[in-house]
Amino acid sequence: MINQHYLDMLGHKSVIRELSEYATARGEEIGYENVFDYSLGNPSVPAPTAFTDTAIRLLQTEEPVKLHGYSPSLGLPGVKAKIAASLTRRFGIPYTPEHIFPTSGCAGAIAHALRAVTKPGDDVLVFAPFFPEYGPYINDTGAHMQIVPAKAPAFQVNFDALEDMLTPNVAAVLVNSPNNPSGIVYSEETLERLAAILTEKSKAFGHNIFLISDEPYREIAYDGKTVPYPAKFYPHTLTCYSFSKSLSVPGERIGYVAVNPLCEAADKLVPMMGQISRGIGHNCPSSLIQLAAAEAVDETADLSVYETNMNLLYDTFQELGFRVQRPGGTFYIMPKALEEDAGAFCRKALKYDLIFVPCEGFHAPGYFRVAYCIDTEKVKRSLPVIRTFVEKEYPNR
Amino acid sequence: MINQHYLDMLGHKSVIRELSEYATARGEEIGYENVFDYSLGNPSVPAPTAFTDTAIRLLQTEEPVKLHGYSPSLGLPGVKAKIAASLTRRFGIPYTPEHIFPTSGCAGAIAHALRAVTKPGDDVLVFAPFFPEYGPYINDTGAHMQIVPAKAPAFQVNFDALEDMLTPNVAAVLVNSPNNPSGIVYSEETLERLAAILTEKSKAFGHNIFLISDEPYREIAYDGKTVPYPAKFYPHTLTCYSFSKSLSVPGERIGYVAVNPLCEAADKLVPMMGQISRGIGHNCPSSLIQLAAAEAVDETADLSVYETNMNLLYDTFQELGFRVQRPGGTFYIMPKALEEDAGAFCRKALKYDLIFVPCEGFHAPGYFRVAYCIDTEKVKRSLPVIRTFVEKEYPNR
Repeated sequence: MINQHYLDMLGHKSVIRELSEYATARGEEIGYENVFDYSLGNPSVPAPTAFTDTAIRLLQTEEPVKLHGYSPSLGLPGVKAKIAASLTRRFGIPYTPEHIFPTSGCAGAIAHALRAVTKPGDDVLVFAPFFPEYGPYINDTGAHMQIVPAKAPAFQVNFDALEDMLTPNVAAVLVNSPNNPSGIVYSEETLERLAAILTEKSKAFGHNIFLISDEPYREIAYDGKTVPYPAKFYPHTLTCYSFSKSLSVPGERIGYVAVNPLCEAADKLVPMMGQISRGIGHNCPSSLIQLAAAEAVDETADLSVYETNMNLLYDTFQELGFRVQRPGGTFYIMPKALEEDAGAFCRKALKYDLIFVPCEGFHAPGYFRVAYCIDTEKVKRSLPVIRTFVEKEYPNR
Repeated sequence: MINQHYLDMLGHKSVIRELSEYATARGEEIGYENVFDYSLGNPSVPAPTAFTDTAIRLLQTEEPVKLHGYSPSLGLPGVKAKIAASLTRRFGIPYTPEHIFPTSGCAGAIAHALRAVTKPGDDVLVFAPFFPEYGPYINDTGAHMQIVPAKAPAFQVNFDALEDMLTPNVAAVLVNSPNNPSGIVYSEETLERLAAILTEKSKAFGHNIFLISDEPYREIAYDGKTVPYPAKFYPHTLTCYSFSKSLSVPGERIGYVAVNPLCEAADKLVPMMGQISRGIGHNCPSSLIQLAAAEAVDETADLSVYETNMNLLYDTFQELGFRVQRPGGTFYIMPKALEEDAGAFCRKALKYDLIFVPCEGFHAPGYFRVAYCIDTEKVKRSLPVIRTFVEKEYPNR
C-alpha cells in the first residue's frame, strides 16, 4: 500500500516552480531573452577554477580505488580539517575536524542538525519570512514548526513574539541570515539579544535550546561587510552551510554542519549525525566533490554581479515608490507589492513578462520576491519594463 | 536537548568496523601486506575509464553554470533516460525515465523506497542472513523489521517461515540477491515462488505487498550467468541499485530506484520519492556524478578478480572440510565456523592475522563472512595460512 502522506503532498504545487515553468514556456514562445525571469534562486556565475581544476587533477592523477573509495561515515578527515581550519581562521571559534560533518548541501545539513537536537513532538521556531522548505524539513522529523511572525519593515527578529512563543516545548530555533526571501542580514545587536533570550530561557527551562543557523548565503554580503556569524554569539549553535552559492555548484550537493565546540555534547553531535545518516540514507556526500570543495574552501565564485544587480533593482524600486528594505546579502530583494494581494500584483506583472514570486508561501503576505541571480544586462533591460508596468497598472500609487 | 535515541546508538560498535580497525592497527605493527584483511566489502578494482573520462570531459568542456546547476528534484532527465533504456534492454521491462529516481547509492534508494510503500507501524520482512544496516534503514522510518530465519545450507528463501510471517501488517518484503554476506543468488524458482506467495497474500489482504529488491551486487555474477532480476517476477517491485560495486565508485554515492511500470501507482512513486527527499534532506545525488555514471551505465570495472578469488577460497574451504555454499556472485563467501561460536572461531583466526567477520550481526550465527575484494596475490598467500590455522586449532574437525 503506498504511503498516503507523501501521495497527498503531490497535490500541492510550488508557486515558485509553477512560475518558473511558466517562464520557460513563455521563453519558448517569445525567446527566453525577452522573459525577465526573477523566479528561481539558481546561481548564475561560474564555479571558481580552484574547484574545477582540483576535480580534474584528482581524476587524472589519483589512484581511482582510493579516490572513489568509501568515505568514513563522518566524512573525509582531510576535508573536515580544511573546513574546520577555515572557520577558525575566519570566525575565531576553535573548531577541530571532529566538529565538522560533511553533508549533501544545506538540506542535508539541516536534516541532520534537526534530528540531533529535537525529538518528535518538540517545537522548532522559525522566523517569517522563511524558505518554504523549512515546513517539510521540520515536520517530517516529527517535530512541529512554529512560526514567529515577521516584523516589518526591517525584518530583524520579532522579539516580542519570540518571547511569547519560547515555551518549554521548544527544542530549537532555526535562523537564516542572510535571509531568503528578504535579503536581510541579522545585525550583531539582533544576534546578541537572541543569544541572551535563548540563554535565559534555557536556564529557566532546564534544557538548552539549540540554535540551528542556515547559512547558504553567508558569502554573498554587500558593501564590503561580513555577515555576523551566529555561532559567535551563542554556544549551542549548529551552523548549516552549503557551498552551492559561494562556489556556484548547487547541483553538486555539498555542505556541512559545524558544531560549535562550546555546545552541549559538542563531542557527541557529529557521531550522532553519523547514526542519523543510517536511517535517512545519507551516507556522506560524493568523495570527489568533498575533496574539490575543501580545496576551494576559502574561495568563492565572482559574486559581485549580485551586488550590482541588487543596486540597480533597489534604486529602481525605491524610485518607483515601493516600500523596500535594502538587502545586506543573498541574491534576493523583497519589496512590498503595490496592492494588498501580492499574488494579483505578480499576475499583473506577468503581462509585462516580469516573473516575480508572491511571498505568501514565505509567510510574508503582501510582499514579493525578486531573485536577481541573472545577467546584469538582462536586469538593465528589465528596469524600463518594471517602470512601465508600475506606471500603467498603478498610476495612483 | 540532544536526541537520546541517536545518543544511545553511539554505544553499539559495529563488529565489522572493530575488526577493520584492528586490521589497520595490526598492519601498522607488522606491515599491512602481512594482514589478511577479509573484513570490509570495499571494491578493490579501478573504475572504468568511461566513468573517469566522462567526468574529466564534462569538467573541461561543459559550461560550469549548467554542469553544476540544480538537478530537477526527480533527477536529470537525460540520466534517467539512459538508466531506463539500459534496464529495458537488459531485462525486457518497459521502464521510461519517469520510473527512475537517482539516489545517493543503495542506502538512499532503500530510504526512499521504504518510505514510499510503508508507514510507521507497518512490518517489513527481511530474510536472514542480511546486511545489518537493514535494521536502522527500516526501524528509523517507524516501520518494524521482522526477520525471516535463514534456511541452511542453500540460503534460498525459507518459504515455510515466510508463509507464517506474512500477516496483513506486512507492507513490504526486502530481498538482496546476490546476497551480502552469503554470496547466494536467488534462483528463478525461488523468485517465482516468492512472487506467487506475495500475489496470493496481497489478494487475501486486499492490499499489495511491495517487494523492495536491494541489488548492489547484481553485476558481480559468476560462471557467466546473469542474476535473475526480481522485478521480472513480481510487478510491485522497487529495484534499488548502486553503481558502487559495478563501477567501483562507492564513495561517489550514486544509485537509483527503478519502479516497475506494472507496479501499483507506478506513475506516482517517483514523484512521491521527490516529496520524501524534502523531509530527509536528500535532494538528488551530485549532478556531475549522475552524468558520469549514466555514461558508463552499461559498463563495469573489471570484476573478474572477484570470481578468481572466490574460486581459490571456495576450493580451500571445501578441501579443509568446511560446510560452505558456493557463491553465485558478490565478493563474499560465508562458511560455517568449525565451532559453534563463530566469534570464538574468528578470534582464534586473528592469531594467524586472518581477519574474518562472525555472522551473528547478519543473523547467521555459527557462520563467518570472508570479504575477498582484495588482491589475488594476497588471497593466494593467505591460503596456506588458513590451512595452518585450521589444522593447528581444529585438528579433530
